[in-house]
Amino acid sequence: MSYDLSIIEEKGDHPREFCGVFGIFGDPDAAEKTYLGLYALQHRGQESAGIAASDGKQISLHRGMGLVWSVFQDPAIMPELEGMQAIGHNRYSTTGSSDLMNAQPILIRSRGEQIAAAHNGNLINARELHTMLEENGAIFQTTSDSEIALHLIARSKKATIEEKIEDSLSQLEGAYCFVFLTNSKLIAARDPRGFRPLCIGKTENSFVVASESCAFDIIGAEYIRSVEPGELIVIDDSGISSRFLKARPQKSFCVFEYIYFSRPDSIIFGEKVDKARRMLGKKLAEEAPCDADIVIAIPDSANTAALGYAQASGLRFEIGLIRNHYVGRTFIAPHQKERNLDVKVKFNPVTGVLKGKRVVVVEDSIVRGTTLKQLVRLIRSAGAVKVHVRVSSPPVKSPCFYGIDISSRGELIASSHCVEETCRHIEADSLAYLSVEGMLSSVTEGDLQCTACFTGDYPTEIPQNFVKDLFAADCGTTEK
Amino acid sequence: MSYDLSIIEEKGDHPREFCGVFGIFGDPDAAEKTYLGLYALQHRGQESAGIAASDGKQISLHRGMGLVWSVFQDPAIMPELEGMQAIGHNRYSTTGSSDLMNAQPILIRSRGEQIAAAHNGNLINARELHTMLEENGAIFQTTSDSEIALHLIARSKKATIEEKIEDSLSQLEGAYCFVFLTNSKLIAARDPRGFRPLCIGKTENSFVVASESCAFDIIGAEYIRSVEPGELIVIDDSGISSRFLKARPQKSFCVFEYIYFSRPDSIIFGEKVDKARRMLGKKLAEEAPCDADIVIAIPDSANTAALGYAQASGLRFEIGLIRNHYVGRTFIAPHQKERNLDVKVKFNPVTGVLKGKRVVVVEDSIVRGTTLKQLVRLIRSAGAVKVHVRVSSPPVKSPCFYGIDISSRGELIASSHCVEETCRHIEADSLAYLSVEGMLSSVTEGDLQCTACFTGDYPTEIPQNFVKDLFAADCGTTEK
Amino acid sequence: MSYDLSIIEEKGDHPREFCGVFGIFGDPDAAEKTYLGLYALQHRGQESAGIAASDGKQISLHRGMGLVWSVFQDPAIMPELEGMQAIGHNRYSTTGSSDLMNAQPILIRSRGEQIAAAHNGNLINARELHTMLEENGAIFQTTSDSEIALHLIARSKKATIEEKIEDSLSQLEGAYCFVFLTNSKLIAARDPRGFRPLCIGKTENSFVVASESCAFDIIGAEYIRSVEPGELIVIDDSGISSRFLKARPQKSFCVFEYIYFSRPDSIIFGEKVDKARRMLGKKLAEEAPCDADIVIAIPDSANTAALGYAQASGLRFEIGLIRNHYVGRTFIAPHQKERNLDVKVKFNPVTGVLKGKRVVVVEDSIVRGTTLKQLVRLIRSAGAVKVHVRVSSPPVKSPCFYGIDISSRGELIASSHCVEETCRHIEADSLAYLSVEGMLSSVTEGDLQCTACFTGDYPTEIPQNFVKDLFAADCGTTEK
Amino acid sequence: MSYDLSIIEEKGDHPREFCGVFGIFGDPDAAEKTYLGLYALQHRGQESAGIAASDGKQISLHRGMGLVWSVFQDPAIMPELEGMQAIGHNRYSTTGSSDLMNAQPILIRSRGEQIAAAHNGNLINARELHTMLEENGAIFQTTSDSEIALHLIARSKKATIEEKIEDSLSQLEGAYCFVFLTNSKLIAARDPRGFRPLCIGKTENSFVVASESCAFDIIGAEYIRSVEPGELIVIDDSGISSRFLKARPQKSFCVFEYIYFSRPDSIIFGEKVDKARRMLGKKLAEEAPCDADIVIAIPDSANTAALGYAQASGLRFEIGLIRNHYVGRTFIAPHQKERNLDVKVKFNPVTGVLKGKRVVVVEDSIVRGTTLKQLVRLIRSAGAVKVHVRVSSPPVKSPCFYGIDISSRGELIASSHCVEETCRHIEADSLAYLSVEGMLSSVTEGDLQCTACFTGDYPTEIPQNFVKDLFAADCGTTEK
Repeated sequence: MSYDLSIIEEKGDHPREFCGVFGIFGDPDAAEKTYLGLYALQHRGQESAGIAASDGKQISLHRGMGLVWSVFQDPAIMPELEGMQAIGHNRYSTTGSSDLMNAQPILIRSRGEQIAAAHNGNLINARELHTMLEENGAIFQTTSDSEIALHLIARSKKATIEEKIEDSLSQLEGAYCFVFLTNSKLIAARDPRGFRPLCIGKTENSFVVASESCAFDIIGAEYIRSVEPGELIVIDDSGISSRFLKARPQKSFCVFEYIYFSRPDSIIFGEKVDKARRMLGKKLAEEAPCDADIVIAIPDSANTAALGYAQASGLRFEIGLIRNHYVGRTFIAPHQKERNLDVKVKFNPVTGVLKGKRVVVVEDSIVRGTTLKQLVRLIRSAGAVKVHVRVSSPPVKSPCFYGIDISSRGELIASSHCVEETCRHIEADSLAYLSVEGMLSSVTEGDLQCTACFTGDYPTEIPQNFVKDLFAADCGTTEK
Repeated sequence: MSYDLSIIEEKGDHPREFCGVFGIFGDPDAAEKTYLGLYALQHRGQESAGIAASDGKQISLHRGMGLVWSVFQDPAIMPELEGMQAIGHNRYSTTGSSDLMNAQPILIRSRGEQIAAAHNGNLINARELHTMLEENGAIFQTTSDSEIALHLIARSKKATIEEKIEDSLSQLEGAYCFVFLTNSKLIAARDPRGFRPLCIGKTENSFVVASESCAFDIIGAEYIRSVEPGELIVIDDSGISSRFLKARPQKSFCVFEYIYFSRPDSIIFGEKVDKARRMLGKKLAEEAPCDADIVIAIPDSANTAALGYAQASGLRFEIGLIRNHYVGRTFIAPHQKERNLDVKVKFNPVTGVLKGKRVVVVEDSIVRGTTLKQLVRLIRSAGAVKVHVRVSSPPVKSPCFYGIDISSRGELIASSHCVEETCRHIEADSLAYLSVEGMLSSVTEGDLQCTACFTGDYPTEIPQNFVKDLFAADCGTTEK
Repeated sequence: MSYDLSIIEEKGDHPREFCGVFGIFGDPDAAEKTYLGLYALQHRGQESAGIAASDGKQISLHRGMGLVWSVFQDPAIMPELEGMQAIGHNRYSTTGSSDLMNAQPILIRSRGEQIAAAHNGNLINARELHTMLEENGAIFQTTSDSEIALHLIARSKKATIEEKIEDSLSQLEGAYCFVFLTNSKLIAARDPRGFRPLCIGKTENSFVVASESCAFDIIGAEYIRSVEPGELIVIDDSGISSRFLKARPQKSFCVFEYIYFSRPDSIIFGEKVDKARRMLGKKLAEEAPCDADIVIAIPDSANTAALGYAQASGLRFEIGLIRNHYVGRTFIAPHQKERNLDVKVKFNPVTGVLKGKRVVVVEDSIVRGTTLKQLVRLIRSAGAVKVHVRVSSPPVKSPCFYGIDISSRGELIASSHCVEETCRHIEADSLAYLSVEGMLSSVTEGDLQCTACFTGDYPTEIPQNFVKDLFAADCGTTEK
Repeated sequence: MSYDLSIIEEKGDHPREFCGVFGIFGDPDAAEKTYLGLYALQHRGQESAGIAASDGKQISLHRGMGLVWSVFQDPAIMPELEGMQAIGHNRYSTTGSSDLMNAQPILIRSRGEQIAAAHNGNLINARELHTMLEENGAIFQTTSDSEIALHLIARSKKATIEEKIEDSLSQLEGAYCFVFLTNSKLIAARDPRGFRPLCIGKTENSFVVASESCAFDIIGAEYIRSVEPGELIVIDDSGISSRFLKARPQKSFCVFEYIYFSRPDSIIFGEKVDKARRMLGKKLAEEAPCDADIVIAIPDSANTAALGYAQASGLRFEIGLIRNHYVGRTFIAPHQKERNLDVKVKFNPVTGVLKGKRVVVVEDSIVRGTTLKQLVRLIRSAGAVKVHVRVSSPPVKSPCFYGIDISSRGELIASSHCVEETCRHIEADSLAYLSVEGMLSSVTEGDLQCTACFTGDYPTEIPQNFVKDLFAADCGTTEK
């Protein structure tokens, strides 16, 4: 009865991104294209997915918990999402609040008009806005920043929806990309610092926006450009137009998008991810060379950086770890745990590659270090005589307040351990990180990147007692 | 591929009630008691169910589509609903909008405080309030009247939650029973006309409210009294107190609760349903006697009235139809439909009882008349030589705007057919309804009943162009 | 974590029947008709359901755990079950072995031919046959008696399938009704003592067989007659023919079919169940009159007998208990159990009927007595001043070996308690059972009934160390 | 209603393996270890999974459709699978018969003893044995070769289970690896030609067998050796022993295990897969060099061969295609299909890697060629100026009868097209396959490999009119 089966969480050692967004205007299969776009953006959020579509008269919505394909697998759903315009959203949830109420898009009515909204990012002044709105009689049903923006839109005295949105967004501080859908317009916006990526694409008859350009490739759309920091893109039957928020702060692109989040085949912030990520590996090889036999990556996220490291170092690239993709959400682990079972379930070391070798293991980043320690052991158990870890980003020392799930300093191994200590902790023979300078020199616009999680230099003020999840302390819905 | 399987809907020939509500304060197993209470009130709504519970610090919520037992069958759910106070809700949905967003209770935050709300009824001025609120910047995420009340509460300038609720409710027109839950109070309220029932009960240490007293019996609580029309009951750690809305209109209890909705073992409006329902049958026997051999009921809802008819007429009561309770929500019917399959799936005639007999068939009410026609045929096919239909309520001629799903005159057979025509339509040998006077004389407070659906005398003004489902025309979520 | 939620089982105080069978030959919608027939026979088994259909070339099969409507609710299933002939089966499982492997029909191949089989009953010599077959190299994949019959058919040296089946059945001892389906024939058979019922019906172009005639009514088929004890009915394109097993023992119809199992609207053993059941109530009134005010039934199974009791005694029939039909399979009960919660979940006492009354409660049978004790308390708590229990069958004292789940004497209250003790145990004011003579005089062919569970007079020899579930001790599949 | 959504099948262009098997004896967590072993063998079969476990007295079984983690995700299942010994099975189904009856292990009773069996392979003389067994009265409930073996065991006149199994297996022709479980023994066997791999491992207290050694790594077991062709391994409380079938034909290891099926981190046939697969790539580079800029693999199966090609050719290895692992079983594709959507859903080309490059694309094998054609287009659309395809195995020209799903010549592009034609068909700039000689020289025991699918030289006789799926034509169960 009280059998003690524990669950191996899918969560690994990486930080988590909050969301991916997508929008399309002018396509007879708008919802289907959105579905494909969300599928291509699945890596940005696996907890819930949703699509809102408008046929010009009303907006239909379907949301659900789970991966895109499963949320929409009932063949009765897609035909309900009629119309030529649609927006979609993938969400990764914080903590355990697997709450359908927090799934996006959110669909509301305001002054007789339906508006759907989806966003990616994190507001710094959510609590202040929340308090202000509540003091003015607003009620909140979700913990999503989208609901705050929608309240501000509904309360704006401006005349048009574009102006209302501009009015609303000008009150927001922090990181955000929004896509809004009304029955006649698709509006996309990016915060003035431009923390998170948002791109514009087009097909013959339609315009498309997405967090990453990989969502364009799958539907055959052409990449045009990034939405600029502080820019609002308005798409309607008369075409595409642009307006800008007044604020013009220093740009602060999230460099972690290059390091880990975005797909290597995407263009973000106007630059190819693959190219930047490979450069990170090359710089790492220059900064932290190693007397070794082969270079391997922790698959799949460090593959590109490892190739760069191998190329610059002249060492041979090898596939020393095979990733198992059959693991589900609730993998039941025996109660008498096999040693290193967590990583064994996900990775298999290739003994023939590793045995007797001095191995450089390239990882893209270290957050907590727990998985990496097990991996080093695994690689060693497969016969590697030396395991040298090289990380294609600097030590992560500070929490992020702009949409990445790096919550508290306590969890960050680099905030309390120097490199030598971390090396001992993960039981590696040597450990080296890429320097901040090396990192910034790997991307085209190095001076426009946010490096707060590495340096603690936050581009915005951070409120005292900031909590990221507004209701984490006092809201416990368990709805599914 | 394109096999044509149709679905026999569970919907029969009866009107539908919108909801059942329950609340408890001061019980260490508050959520469990609420679960049992909802189970006892299941007949008032089978589409969705939900419970909100407070431990004094935060409110937890779980809602889902389906019957109570299935919504809460995952054993992980109940332990999450901690605390000494809870409210619950069963919902029957209008039209096809099987939308989890519309499930209740609704849980919101307003001015730093959580409030959950559940209601039963229908507001007459929902559209006006909705427009007024939207004009003042409110956003709506559901089509539920509860959300309107919560907006009004959040916008009230009054000091305490009781006063805010009083302030809010005094703006509502129509039929409602509300239960509200905060982290320190349980507040129940009934509209000044008292359309829908709401009762107060108690156990040793706790107070309970419910739509019907049958919910008290299952948890061993004692019935105290009805919540009075226009009364607000406030329950907190200091005990139970009462306040009244200012409006004092004529009382208008829904007489259909006695005829069909409420369970016969319940007390509503201070009176036993079984007693009133039996009296309806007796009066019917007096008004519409019949030269026949036996009396049978359309089970189960007409059983009590049929017993009354048999008792007053001296005819023998028999069980001539057996009801099949194994039918699920989606019973697949063959494409080449068996004659009268819809009723055959639900009812089996007992030939031994019916053969060669002149039968009085007692039904509680006729709305559309479609099922009854099939039943008369079924009874005749089992050998009955005469089939006389007696109905323990007057002809339903007008739509209800106070919480019952009798939508449009077009569907009501009695609004376009006289009794003789209806008799021919249902193919009975004779048909008689109870008179309005007979109906009212069957209940203790006959002069306080709403008879609008029979007489068209509405106790409130009905707005022009009234539509019951606010967003029926423009909102199409398909969320599950 | 270790929250203690217990489950209220749907199992009540009644014995359980093992199965219901159905077959049809010559109907273009054979599988659909079988589906409806199984639905009408749902009371004979709720654990699993299955249909095998033949299009003359191959037999298709679908089986699943659960009620008929849920097993076949996926609209892709029925179109796969093509053909003009089909058989179906409802199963109630013993113990907890909810094993799909044991669901029926079973479909096998033997000598290049497919045969599907479904049965109702219980073999006395299953163990002997099993051992004999295993010694001759047979392998067993299920614990079903059907598999034994199929092995014997496969090993028969006879020429035709009819002869093989006759050869096979002549080796079986005990209670059985079989329906077999090949690609050209439907064969139905009943054991020579005729323990379980099996009927023949017809429509314009097809022949039908079913455990009870209620399965004919739902598809519009006409009842012809019972399959005779020891008779094999062979239906093929040339029509219907009959042959008989050689053995001609004394007939032994299961009288419990009249008392409880069969639906009142069915004909079984050539007699209307409703008529016999009502006579049981009348005899009970004669044998055990009572000075009381009203007669109520434990719904729904005792309704008919209670009506008979009321009619014969001149006491008024009332509905004093309402049955709740919303309970699902896994109703979660709070850990701090409400007093009598098990029955409160299923029955609501109608106080208005019971208060101040001396009540005769009619039940059809008493097996363990646990539920009845709670019901007596419930009726008393609703205000009844006297509770007299009258049972329309004799005390159940001995296990059944012919297809009813009355397993061991230890569970039978009457095997260890006299009537007075049982009366005290269930806390009634008086208790009386119908006599065996009274019972037998209530049915037309009283001298042909099996009364073993009441009298211990078994019509067959019972092997030493008989165990009903062959593999109960050593087989633990958990397949779903 | 009749919306035309098609399904993108997960099936790609590769042949399919039928199964993976696992067994363990002497471990207190035998079922859990089996679960992990099956998880590691998931690539060998994704349709159904099952575990049979013995506690020495009885064998428990759980099987289900789907991936290992989902079949066993209900936490109530594993505790039921008690005991120190267990076997498990992953199955890939032929055609659409997703039938739970065909899931393995199969559990039977024979002569009072339970035996469970799981197998990998395909029998050549299944039809003959089947007919012979049916003629002797056997009945068949599945279409699995395991059932044939179990019938033969049950009918063997030998004394011990080892002898019975030896007796049974000696009648089988074709490819098989079996694991059998009784309440006291675990018996593993491999056919005399040794088509499919089977390995022995050990932990401190237990012995383990598995299709591939990767299943040992995950549970911390040590690889000992291959089960020899024709060898029976018997494991019981007294330890491990070995016996051999009499037949000593030429060994015929399936070379496709090296090319594609087995995991690179496994040892099969006594040799590391990674090493052999890399050698295939090196030989390919020698035989078919290419004037190009980079080498990429079709991930993930061709990665190792591509590394070998790159190493031998001196060309740079790059990751030019990213594989999307979020695709589910039922990915709904829009009805207006995007060009090349099938491959776009699974692969993303990395433009930064491919643009302007002359690319060598290494694939492990070509069966139908349909996916490869789309991939070549995709790579070209990402900017590759030349696309040269190199295949690390010879052209597949003949069906396999030994357990691989290469069904008919009609589907094999190489059986009807010469290399030039195939090159034009897949729209590549050049195409080259590895030669048979090159392939055989890449593995240690090249002369012991079966090359039938490349050469048509079958190591066994193939019966006339051989059909692989015995009942494909006449059995249509749809059970789930």
